[in-house]
Amino acid sequence: MNNGVNLKELAAELKLAPSTVSRALNDSWEISEATKKKVISMAEKLNYQPNPFARSLRENKSKTIAVIIPERINNFFAQVMDGIENIAQEHGYHLLVYNTHEDVDREKKIVNLLLNGRADAVVMSVSSQTSDISHLEKLYARGLPLIFFDRICTDIPTTKFITNDYESSYQGTKHLIQQGCKKVAFLMLSKELSITKERHRGYLDALLEAGLSPEPAFSLNCSMCEEQNIELIREMLWSNNRPDGILASVEKLALATYQAVKRTKLRIPQDLKVISFSNMGIAGLLEPSLTTITQPAITIGQECAKLLIKKLTKPKQNDLIDQVITIPSKITIRSSTLAE
Amino acid sequence: MNNGVNLKELAAELKLAPSTVSRALNDSWEISEATKKKVISMAEKLNYQPNPFARSLRENKSKTIAVIIPERINNFFAQVMDGIENIAQEHGYHLLVYNTHEDVDREKKIVNLLLNGRADAVVMSVSSQTSDISHLEKLYARGLPLIFFDRICTDIPTTKFITNDYESSYQGTKHLIQQGCKKVAFLMLSKELSITKERHRGYLDALLEAGLSPEPAFSLNCSMCEEQNIELIREMLWSNNRPDGILASVEKLALATYQAVKRTKLRIPQDLKVISFSNMGIAGLLEPSLTTITQPAITIGQECAKLLIKKLTKPKQNDLIDQVITIPSKITIRSSTLAE
Repeated sequence: MNNGVNLKELAAELKLAPSTVSRALNDSWEISEATKKKVISMAEKLNYQPNPFARSLRENKSKTIAVIIPERINNFFAQVMDGIENIAQEHGYHLLVYNTHEDVDREKKIVNLLLNGRADAVVMSVSSQTSDISHLEKLYARGLPLIFFDRICTDIPTTKFITNDYESSYQGTKHLIQQGCKKVAFLMLSKELSITKERHRGYLDALLEAGLSPEPAFSLNCSMCEEQNIELIREMLWSNNRPDGILASVEKLALATYQAVKRTKLRIPQDLKVISFSNMGIAGLLEPSLTTITQPAITIGQECAKLLIKKLTKPKQNDLIDQVITIPSKITIRSSTLAE
Repeated sequence: MNNGVNLKELAAELKLAPSTVSRALNDSWEISEATKKKVISMAEKLNYQPNPFARSLRENKSKTIAVIIPERINNFFAQVMDGIENIAQEHGYHLLVYNTHEDVDREKKIVNLLLNGRADAVVMSVSSQTSDISHLEKLYARGLPLIFFDRICTDIPTTKFITNDYESSYQGTKHLIQQGCKKVAFLMLSKELSITKERHRGYLDALLEAGLSPEPAFSLNCSMCEEQNIELIREMLWSNNRPDGILASVEKLALATYQAVKRTKLRIPQDLKVISFSNMGIAGLLEPSLTTITQPAITIGQECAKLLIKKLTKPKQNDLIDQVITIPSKITIRSSTLAE
């Protein structure tokens, strides 16, 4: 196949004005059926390639990307949003933003509203309740470009962005063990989430490698309710067989741990060491300052947006292939994991 | 001037089908120029009034509200957004969200993009750089329902929602004085902002009432740059005539104060007491826990959305009158202002 011609070259070949050719290709009422036929036949013959900018103007007229997140008051998601918006604004795209509040029913409602073409594309992180994914399959089947990040849906064959969840969790657990912990607990929000599974696997492997046997009760499943989580953690800390280290797989569970410790006589890090996945800017101002596994949130947002906009601008050259792209996290050691 | 005619009456007068008249008024290509001229001239003569429902269907078809905030990683704005979204979702409205990053040029660009009718209404909090308001005047003149919250633009005659900035700041300063402070500093982000002026006025009045003379150098104008702010505050704390109390008019300046204190030998609250406007959920986990003036952020968001949706649904019965609606803040006393 040849490299094709552009609008101007096609018009020259047809001995017509470029504006006439453009209108003919757009099926304008101003152009006769005879001319339209002639233009289309020549366009096919010469392998006419529409200008991508003109095409995006015509086909993607909403110029809108929908972003669905499970929580807004969360540094990680706020930073991802900023990353998406930076790239989107550069390319003239607008963002429709939806917060599911970790509620799968709300997520379904939002996804259904997006089936009508209000947005040109969707980038999302699923709620911690999402196990039935029929609404996401429907959205994918509609052909709308769809990307997942962080809390991804592995069964949908599109591109997903995550951090190195297994490896970060493995390294975080290993750090606790190196600092002297023998009984490490793992706090999670939902077993349903792919990232929880990966982080949990990293935690278990680090324990096994160190010859420590994982205590089932130390893999603590928490809820959406802050007070309930604080009490769950406090109970675990009050038991005879209490952990001496905690890896929180989400930021809010590290904060719940700090609150729970306040209800005991334990001290961080002397009696309990804590490390957490967290993008909190003020982790260093907590008492004690919190050791964190920080995800590359802004980069994740930017990469999602770049890929989507490529897809929207040149759909044929850019497939959202079924792949998981990993951008590594960074561990910052602070006082909460200090050895005595 | 007479009360005008509706579409049906206009069509009868012209002896044309209402659909033809409608298409002529909408400048459809299906109608000849001669007919268009005739219709428009008769519409003007008879003072044709479009049906408000048809008009709203035609003009407000996006079912979208644009929300413009100066910062996303900020608990106050995140909570306002959640409040707006709760009400908007209930009424089938979608949110376009824009972060100006406190950059007035970005704000102008965003506002200009909204002039084309992409959103049915706008709710916004201006950037701390905004002093020239011509872009906001243009948006208002376009007739798009517009509401301000928190960082309001007093010169635009629409409805604004704020907290009791003067009173809260007055009470916060009074609290510092009651706890023993004699030299209280006021940290602000921008003198241009109406809320800064109100909060500063409350601070000054509390000092004067207590017989303390305000030190000009203690009204500290900070910047967008965190490191610069930390250094500015540190310098103030190192001077011979240093403050013994600080009222931060925005959350990030309280956090900068905590960081600055770490670079000195001072202790909070023994050497320096700190109170801040803040919606941080974890103010109680800082070292020491931070005394806060908490704004009713979710309520502010909900009230903005309720009023806008009323206006969009029944525009004639609901004017966005030129008024400022105040929803009071709440002071929560913690360790950072403890007396010795």
